[in-house]
Amino acid sequence: MSERKRILTGIRPTGALHLGHYAGALENWIRLQKEYDCHFLIADYQVSDYADNLERVRESVWEVALDWLAVGLDPEESCFVIESLVPEHAELTTWLSWFLPLGMLQRNPTLKSEMADFGKKSVPVAFFTYPVMQVGNILMPRANVVPVGEDQLPHIEMTRELARRFNRQFKEVFPEPEGLVGRVPRLVGLDGQAKMSKSLNNTIQLKDDSDTVAQKVRGMFTDPTRLRATDPGHVEGNPVFMYHDAFNPNVDEVNDLKERYLHGQVGDVEVKQKLTTALNNLLDPFRERRSYYETHLDEVRDALESGTARARVVARETMELVRDAMGINYLNDPPRGADRATPNS
Amino acid sequence: MSERKRILTGIRPTGALHLGHYAGALENWIRLQKEYDCHFLIADYQVSDYADNLERVRESVWEVALDWLAVGLDPEESCFVIESLVPEHAELTTWLSWFLPLGMLQRNPTLKSEMADFGKKSVPVAFFTYPVMQVGNILMPRANVVPVGEDQLPHIEMTRELARRFNRQFKEVFPEPEGLVGRVPRLVGLDGQAKMSKSLNNTIQLKDDSDTVAQKVRGMFTDPTRLRATDPGHVEGNPVFMYHDAFNPNVDEVNDLKERYLHGQVGDVEVKQKLTTALNNLLDPFRERRSYYETHLDEVRDALESGTARARVVARETMELVRDAMGINYLNDPPRGADRATPNS
Repeated sequence: MSERKRILTGIRPTGALHLGHYAGALENWIRLQKEYDCHFLIADYQVSDYADNLERVRESVWEVALDWLAVGLDPEESCFVIESLVPEHAELTTWLSWFLPLGMLQRNPTLKSEMADFGKKSVPVAFFTYPVMQVGNILMPRANVVPVGEDQLPHIEMTRELARRFNRQFKEVFPEPEGLVGRVPRLVGLDGQAKMSKSLNNTIQLKDDSDTVAQKVRGMFTDPTRLRATDPGHVEGNPVFMYHDAFNPNVDEVNDLKERYLHGQVGDVEVKQKLTTALNNLLDPFRERRSYYETHLDEVRDALESGTARARVVARETMELVRDAMGINYLNDPPRGADRATPNS
Repeated sequence: MSERKRILTGIRPTGALHLGHYAGALENWIRLQKEYDCHFLIADYQVSDYADNLERVRESVWEVALDWLAVGLDPEESCFVIESLVPEHAELTTWLSWFLPLGMLQRNPTLKSEMADFGKKSVPVAFFTYPVMQVGNILMPRANVVPVGEDQLPHIEMTRELARRFNRQFKEVFPEPEGLVGRVPRLVGLDGQAKMSKSLNNTIQLKDDSDTVAQKVRGMFTDPTRLRATDPGHVEGNPVFMYHDAFNPNVDEVNDLKERYLHGQVGDVEVKQKLTTALNNLLDPFRERRSYYETHLDEVRDALESGTARARVVARETMELVRDAMGINYLNDPPRGADRATPNS
């Protein structure tokens, strides 16, 4: 296992996962877990409204693990890691903060726009510094590859910069990790908004049952310029077709639907029914596995516990390398002239 | 020992300690160690130019410990603690950062003025956040009293605020600590500058030998308006007399010198010779103890090792209380309906 290159990626525990997570990340992870030594992180240190929503964080740690198991991530093959249960994350982040200029953080475009979202609410110090924690997360297992959302690419850049600085100043400890963006970097919401997001209430959750999916798809935003099934419709920018492209593996069916839609030969109802079928085909095996784990929570706990423990072994190795490179094992390193005579009196 | 109230205080390892440290802090600590359970911290996480001066930090960890032993701090009675060897400091600081608004840090007057001192040099993220680390240091051993320099009082205020918030939101975990300023909060430099400081090269180090002290005192700034020993001189604001006040226990001698100085009846030479004698009387026992420990570095290491280990026991207790209060021992806390039937399919 140690021969394989290592991946670090993660998710914040803010609720059950949805199709956006699947298309943007999980689908990719399922494939990657065969080729890489994967560390999948539940980044509980980094929930932006942490202090006010602990109950939700607590529940979501389990929800995320259930969804991971449901989609087929394998906790034997990969490590499921709870960030805060590896305290070395905080330790490494503290050291790295000495090598990161404040200006680099202030100029980070993703952080800037996220901080603007707080509006008049006060930004916690931990939110301002979360990108440093992300750098620490990535460097902790000395990851080579980091599957991320597009908006996280600036953090990867910062990580590479910091790895270079550290290696140059001390010793080659950290690989310079590569970012890897998923197939569908940003899935449009059911309502046509730019992003599927729990807070916008425009999601299909991976754990939604088939009726819920059918009902949500029926309510989906389509082409607002089209009034009757016989009107020519727009496929481009139409969320229903974007989902077909993303989740319907039957390409012929999708092309046929598009063709007929453009020429006013198919109604929304049929297009949506076929989407519902495709989505439920995708989700059915997830539901089955999830229902197993929901009644076997001890196995979920085992997955989290053993993954976190294995990650912690790696984390301790890394901290040893860091301490050794920086020379901060003070007690191993008494001052020169340990047996010198008194200099005065 | 656990019946006694607890003190947390510390020093950054930036070099050997000087008379300013003694008058502003150490003298006080020596007295306090009898009454309190003291944690004396070597705050290596918080050296402002850490990244560029690791060699100096490494040496200074030992220098500080030697000076502490030299002045008579008792490592059996109190804990000598190396900050970074108690990784819980980083952990607690990370959690606390969620409860501290960025604005409160940005408005901290001490931090503001210290950041201005960087001038055009870039401020590391860790410097900007060091006051949060200080809050974590104080809360870590659940300290009741914090001897500090005047300029650190804003950090104590921040600590009290954060302790209140945490206790209110979760559970009574942290006492609200009181700041305690030393007898001579800010010792003037040999050159008459506002502060004795290594970087200004205007210090008398605790480890200076008696000739060095004599020579430094001879070069001290006195009353610039006085040209001859028979001119009436100024006592107020005169560093030599400020040192007499601070370090010469013979009050009659000091009053007599002042009287004669005011009337032009004593030369600088005599005033300075008497100061040299007073200082060497103070420093002689320190030199003696220091010379013992310089040839017994294993005892210094023991002091650091055992103090850090004892502090770590307390730190782990605190982290357990914190995790328990916040409810973030996720794995002990499976979701409700652990044995619920599958909700769908």
